Amino acid sequence: MDLNSDVGESFGSWTMGDDESIMRVVSSANVACGFHAGDPVVARATCAAAAREGVTVGAHVAYRDLAGFGRRFMDVSPAELTNDVIYQIGALQAMAAAAGTTVRYVKPHGALYNTIAKHEQQARAVVEAIRTVDESLPILVLPGSVIQREAEAAGLRAVVEAFADRAYNADGSLVSRRMEGSVIHDPEAIAARVVQMATDSTVETVDGQTITVDAESVCVHGDTPGAVAIATAVRAALEEAGVPVTSFL
Amino acid sequence: MDLNSDVGESFGSWTMGDDESIMRVVSSANVACGFHAGDPVVARATCAAAAREGVTVGAHVAYRDLAGFGRRFMDVSPAELTNDVIYQIGALQAMAAAAGTTVRYVKPHGALYNTIAKHEQQARAVVEAIRTVDESLPILVLPGSVIQREAEAAGLRAVVEAFADRAYNADGSLVSRRMEGSVIHDPEAIAARVVQMATDSTVETVDGQTITVDAESVCVHGDTPGAVAIATAVRAALEEAGVPVTSFL
Amino acid sequence: MDLNSDVGESFGSWTMGDDESIMRVVSSANVACGFHAGDPVVARATCAAAAREGVTVGAHVAYRDLAGFGRRFMDVSPAELTNDVIYQIGALQAMAAAAGTTVRYVKPHGALYNTIAKHEQQARAVVEAIRTVDESLPILVLPGSVIQREAEAAGLRAVVEAFADRAYNADGSLVSRRMEGSVIHDPEAIAARVVQMATDSTVETVDGQTITVDAESVCVHGDTPGAVAIATAVRAALEEAGVPVTSFL
Amino acid sequence: MDLNSDVGESFGSWTMGDDESIMRVVSSANVACGFHAGDPVVARATCAAAAREGVTVGAHVAYRDLAGFGRRFMDVSPAELTNDVIYQIGALQAMAAAAGTTVRYVKPHGALYNTIAKHEQQARAVVEAIRTVDESLPILVLPGSVIQREAEAAGLRAVVEAFADRAYNADGSLVSRRMEGSVIHDPEAIAARVVQMATDSTVETVDGQTITVDAESVCVHGDTPGAVAIATAVRAALEEAGVPVTSFL
Repeated sequence: MDLNSDVGESFGSWTMGDDESIMRVVSSANVACGFHAGDPVVARATCAAAAREGVTVGAHVAYRDLAGFGRRFMDVSPAELTNDVIYQIGALQAMAAAAGTTVRYVKPHGALYNTIAKHEQQARAVVEAIRTVDESLPILVLPGSVIQREAEAAGLRAVVEAFADRAYNADGSLVSRRMEGSVIHDPEAIAARVVQMATDSTVETVDGQTITVDAESVCVHGDTPGAVAIATAVRAALEEAGVPVTSFL
Repeated sequence: MDLNSDVGESFGSWTMGDDESIMRVVSSANVACGFHAGDPVVARATCAAAAREGVTVGAHVAYRDLAGFGRRFMDVSPAELTNDVIYQIGALQAMAAAAGTTVRYVKPHGALYNTIAKHEQQARAVVEAIRTVDESLPILVLPGSVIQREAEAAGLRAVVEAFADRAYNADGSLVSRRMEGSVIHDPEAIAARVVQMATDSTVETVDGQTITVDAESVCVHGDTPGAVAIATAVRAALEEAGVPVTSFL
Repeated sequence: MDLNSDVGESFGSWTMGDDESIMRVVSSANVACGFHAGDPVVARATCAAAAREGVTVGAHVAYRDLAGFGRRFMDVSPAELTNDVIYQIGALQAMAAAAGTTVRYVKPHGALYNTIAKHEQQARAVVEAIRTVDESLPILVLPGSVIQREAEAAGLRAVVEAFADRAYNADGSLVSRRMEGSVIHDPEAIAARVVQMATDSTVETVDGQTITVDAESVCVHGDTPGAVAIATAVRAALEEAGVPVTSFL
Repeated sequence: MDLNSDVGESFGSWTMGDDESIMRVVSSANVACGFHAGDPVVARATCAAAAREGVTVGAHVAYRDLAGFGRRFMDVSPAELTNDVIYQIGALQAMAAAAGTTVRYVKPHGALYNTIAKHEQQARAVVEAIRTVDESLPILVLPGSVIQREAEAAGLRAVVEAFADRAYNADGSLVSRRMEGSVIHDPEAIAARVVQMATDSTVETVDGQTITVDAESVCVHGDTPGAVAIATAVRAALEEAGVPVTSFL
């Protein structure tokens, strides 16, 4: 099973997350490209750390919105979005190469990730960007999303991801963050869920049913000490269950 | 003789220069990479225009200063400068590839260009960036500059450029813009000077001497209708003199 | 009748519009505050020009989006929007004071203008900002909009504006820009419409009816030579009809 | 004795420093204005915290350089610098007013602070900005600096500050950060030095002499847990010595 996490989100004098620790846990690193977070020094150092730890580098592309950390929907045109994504991938490719590694997948960030799960025009713009750069680059997607459908229709590999700490509805969607119980906090419970996803391809829903979850990657967080502890527990539990943590590539 | 010009310096809703016209005159296009000017849509369209006209694309790298158009010296650290330059080249490489062409040289812009003519640390940081990305990429330089020396010492090809509309001192340096007569405005006079540079490798100085100018490229402007007219006159005069306008590559 | 226009939208080395000409035509200047366009040097010079010509200064507040010129909807939170608007008004107040004048109204720009015509939460956030800064500042609004209702409910003065060059539907709304005939281009026709608005409070709709338009201000453009010519024709026609062009204050 | 510290330097999703704790220690808060750090939401919350704790608010003006945190010298023109400073003060005045307080002094930040200690043109540009906004606003300065001389020559009040944790040379200048021993780390030693500055107007130099330090304010840091502990120790020691911590106003 692959574990992925957002890294390289420091910017200038501001630090975010404990990249060093999380890089020892995950197999895939979503590296910020400078539009929502990250700068060239940070991006290169992050890619270098990934290379050192044998972690696969992905381009964590986003809306151009540092002040909002890419978390605010922006009604960008398809041409703007396609070219913004190409630009970000290209920039990160150069930073990765400078660090002795390469960009091997794409994961849209924040509001862009959520938007292209439903917004056909923006989803197609992202697909168009990836196809233009390198159609062999997979994209991490929410299962059942518009971006999954559009990516696959265009011949891209869409890698479905699950979320370690999120509760699921019976239809496989995530419980809205506005609902109580949407986020799971207990490290052992989270670790057990990820092991079940990895070994049995199932998860227990918020209302007690068991559903299928065919994820090739599980997203974990590293932005707080607690998050790193959870990610570490997830990895240990997977290894104990005999599931190697390894890139989906 | 190669003619180069700054293009792709529009940004969002703001337009700068007449790129379409100048692209029919020059053989090398210095395309802005988004740090002093340019955005992903503009960069791609500019690269596409260059591809269409058979013009060679260069990365016009700069300080991160949109508000100052890259014209203000910034005391950036070597690590920041190296990585900022790598990032810009990488981003433009992706935009160029999307437009069916490639980045084939680097020209530092504005304050960075002037700074690395004298500032050893920043010159080395730029050289380090180019070597990291692709040591076969030439860099356009002021003759006799620190950046020329550093680039050549590091094994890069330094392409010396002359300026079509600038007056020269007897030692080959440019007459300061603060002096009267530093900029030549008459299109025919400018065209004649460039023809002399191209056919005789000499230029007449501000005090009437004739000196050697061994430039492989001549910089022309395209930011005003007058500038485009001058560039057009330069090209016509070169062709009339039997000098083909062609990339230094 | 008041004539208002967007000015101060140059940024750094990029120029937009012919502010000098338009400033001799209008009675109200919507001055960019630095979030979608404008910078401190431009804002001060624009306020100084307004002061010189006896033109009233308004704060042209916008989303924080230089790359998109404030023309892209952004899903900002109410707290972000309120404080972004307060910040912009405060900054422009200082630039206006430095230029010997004061900010006397607020006009939201671009996507923000369009959004708060319908989006209650963002409309309230803008109202909250103006009330916090100075509840005597009027706000320019689209007639019948959510922002008009919210502003008036909060005790602000909402100044309804009409558009000189836009076709109207029978219900008083603007014909969508996607429809043919939505924008009128003939200077004389435009001037005649504005005179009719000013003297008769009516306008002819796209389907030939005559409806009431109770505007206190008419928006004209100054971003192209053609736009300035139209604005000039509008002013001349108003004066010929005995309608003084004067601020709504 | 006044204690001042830099606050409000978070930006969007990035946090910097422990403003809540430091606000209970200092009497003057240098609030970032958005050019090197801070955003409108942060600035307002910081001003509100200052108002709550009875702390005086100052405008911490800086170069326009978020990526460099205002720590890189920029060769801005006097007109740019003057207007950038006016803009920042005006923006912060609005945020302070929204928080129920007012901007009562100016402290230049980082590279700008260091530059105007020696750079006459930039020092004058800052003085010009303050005079334009409100000539009753004092400016915090390094003793013996060009900015002190220029501010006083222009009729501004220049408030000399000392640094709690920095070693002094015999001539009253700070020991360069490049020298060993330039920064003092022991909280008790630092507290004792500040008490001596406050009660005796003297400090022991790096080579064991005792010199006069006529500071009206002492700068303390709050960007790390250790820094907050030091600042807290300084305040406790001052109070124990019977020196009230109170604004220089």
